[in-house]
Amino acid sequence: MRSSLATSRHGGRLPLEEYRDGVLAGDRVVLARAITLIESDLASDAELGIQLLDAILPSIGKTRRLGITGVPGVGKSTFIDALGTHLTRDRGERLAVLSIDPSSPISRGSILGDKTRMERLAVNELAFIRPSPSGGHLGGIGRRTRETILLCEAAGYRNIFIETVGVGQSETAVHAVSDFFLLLMLAGAGDQLQGIKRGIIEMVDGMAINKADGHNKTPAERARAEYASALRLFPPSPDGWAPRVLCCSSLECTGIAEIWQMVLDHEAQLEVSGKLAQRRMRGELQWMHDLISNGLRDTFRSHPAIAELMPQLEQEVRVGRSTPLAASRRLLDVFQPDRQTTRT
Amino acid sequence: MRSSLATSRHGGRLPLEEYRDGVLAGDRVVLARAITLIESDLASDAELGIQLLDAILPSIGKTRRLGITGVPGVGKSTFIDALGTHLTRDRGERLAVLSIDPSSPISRGSILGDKTRMERLAVNELAFIRPSPSGGHLGGIGRRTRETILLCEAAGYRNIFIETVGVGQSETAVHAVSDFFLLLMLAGAGDQLQGIKRGIIEMVDGMAINKADGHNKTPAERARAEYASALRLFPPSPDGWAPRVLCCSSLECTGIAEIWQMVLDHEAQLEVSGKLAQRRMRGELQWMHDLISNGLRDTFRSHPAIAELMPQLEQEVRVGRSTPLAASRRLLDVFQPDRQTTRT
Repeated sequence: MRSSLATSRHGGRLPLEEYRDGVLAGDRVVLARAITLIESDLASDAELGIQLLDAILPSIGKTRRLGITGVPGVGKSTFIDALGTHLTRDRGERLAVLSIDPSSPISRGSILGDKTRMERLAVNELAFIRPSPSGGHLGGIGRRTRETILLCEAAGYRNIFIETVGVGQSETAVHAVSDFFLLLMLAGAGDQLQGIKRGIIEMVDGMAINKADGHNKTPAERARAEYASALRLFPPSPDGWAPRVLCCSSLECTGIAEIWQMVLDHEAQLEVSGKLAQRRMRGELQWMHDLISNGLRDTFRSHPAIAELMPQLEQEVRVGRSTPLAASRRLLDVFQPDRQTTRT
Repeated sequence: MRSSLATSRHGGRLPLEEYRDGVLAGDRVVLARAITLIESDLASDAELGIQLLDAILPSIGKTRRLGITGVPGVGKSTFIDALGTHLTRDRGERLAVLSIDPSSPISRGSILGDKTRMERLAVNELAFIRPSPSGGHLGGIGRRTRETILLCEAAGYRNIFIETVGVGQSETAVHAVSDFFLLLMLAGAGDQLQGIKRGIIEMVDGMAINKADGHNKTPAERARAEYASALRLFPPSPDGWAPRVLCCSSLECTGIAEIWQMVLDHEAQLEVSGKLAQRRMRGELQWMHDLISNGLRDTFRSHPAIAELMPQLEQEVRVGRSTPLAASRRLLDVFQPDRQTTRT
């Protein structure tokens, strides 16, 4: 598994072939450097990164992407340690964990701290843990989280966990990128829900009431039953899956295998109906259009006249001195003086 | 209330001053023509429309915007007729109803049908009913629904109902445009929820279980209790309001006054906390940025080379032959060969 790129291993870029061969051979060092390449802002890196993705794309087989979210304090890291250990040690599968490193000040606990808390996974040869900087792009998941997923998959990590903090914008994007979207909760709704973006609960494929141990066991079971009833009142998922709610204890490792079984059941059901492929395809097209929108927005905002005018017009809209329509047209006219459409 | 624009009343455009004076005087015919102007695709109309909005903006006082959604068959039109009649006849207030005319084939019942079903409102001098074509823009609400709201408000309609069919994309935009977002439901969750966009229930400020009469009374009350419990498990609204669930019968006019009282309670609470003004301001800025994104997207898509290349690249992404990143960069490079940023 070790490549022999001794000299070029640190610093500098590798040739395309060495990235490709290293990633496909499952070389963890080359994989890590390929991810760094993909995340780079340099135009030359970006070009090489795209070539690399194109080169590895045909080698990616069947994979499984699990989005995991929950507010700080819910025990995401220890849960991932428990579920990941079940997956790797008990089932012999390979797993990559991508933790979205939030720029948001709401998050407590650094990624390094998280990594340390994944005690068993961190030393497991079958597991690969990587923080993914969010950079405030595209609904809170990393700007290159999707491409990082592809690299990990090409490196033979058939299972990918994408972890976010469960607050702010991140969940919709995580939902779009994952095959199964799991929300971690604690017993005693209320405080812990503070900060979760509204609309998330209706998006989940499954919920896990964590820390269902000791004194917490009964309240956790009660919360489980309540959420299960509540979810039944929701609009059904377009893919025909009825979300489930389970209890677990990362500490005592109870309920962990059951949660994994839920993920497998979901996969089996959606594979038969063809909805899994549809969900992925929709996600891919959405990602393409999001990237285009972001590219256009970046170009727009970096236009000197726009950068100068924008704050002023935002203020006029804010105080009601201008309508959003007038302000947007003024900006668009500055950006493209010869545009013909009026359908703004 | 009648203006004297006898000759210019039909066909052709009015001078800015006549639009402005007519709207501000509450002239229904001029208001209707001003809305038509705002909805026009002609560049010259658009320019005049923006001037008109700027001219009326300072005259708009305190208003109240109620978004009403629910799937076809839930009884939206008769409910609006009942609530609107309570508002106009019992409370002497003026009301404009904007029905979003969906382009979607999912919708049953034409707007004309809806208008006929608002029997009492349709002949009420204090009420103004107007369909608003959605045109598939901006999350399903009309491309000019927001501007139409402003015109109605300037014409003295202090209360605005914005009605959508409750399916597809429309609800998020309606939520963004309204001060209070009401979901109409029927007893017996299940079928009726089919088609409601997931995430909507967590967005509502209130729910009304309609048709709570006759045999339906007991099931409606049960549904009310269930939804009330379920909503308590959700993340709290950022504006501090706890959504309520009520029963009503549009037929027997029971529960209607209570629903209006809920809207007023919400307004009172959010006015004290300053959250109402914040919600509106956020909505306005969001609208400005949405309009900019849409304008950029329209320009992008109408570029001949993009229009030709897009379907091909979408297909490559769909079948996994290209990544969304590579496809988006190729399109952006075609659109702006000299762009410098790589942060797509």
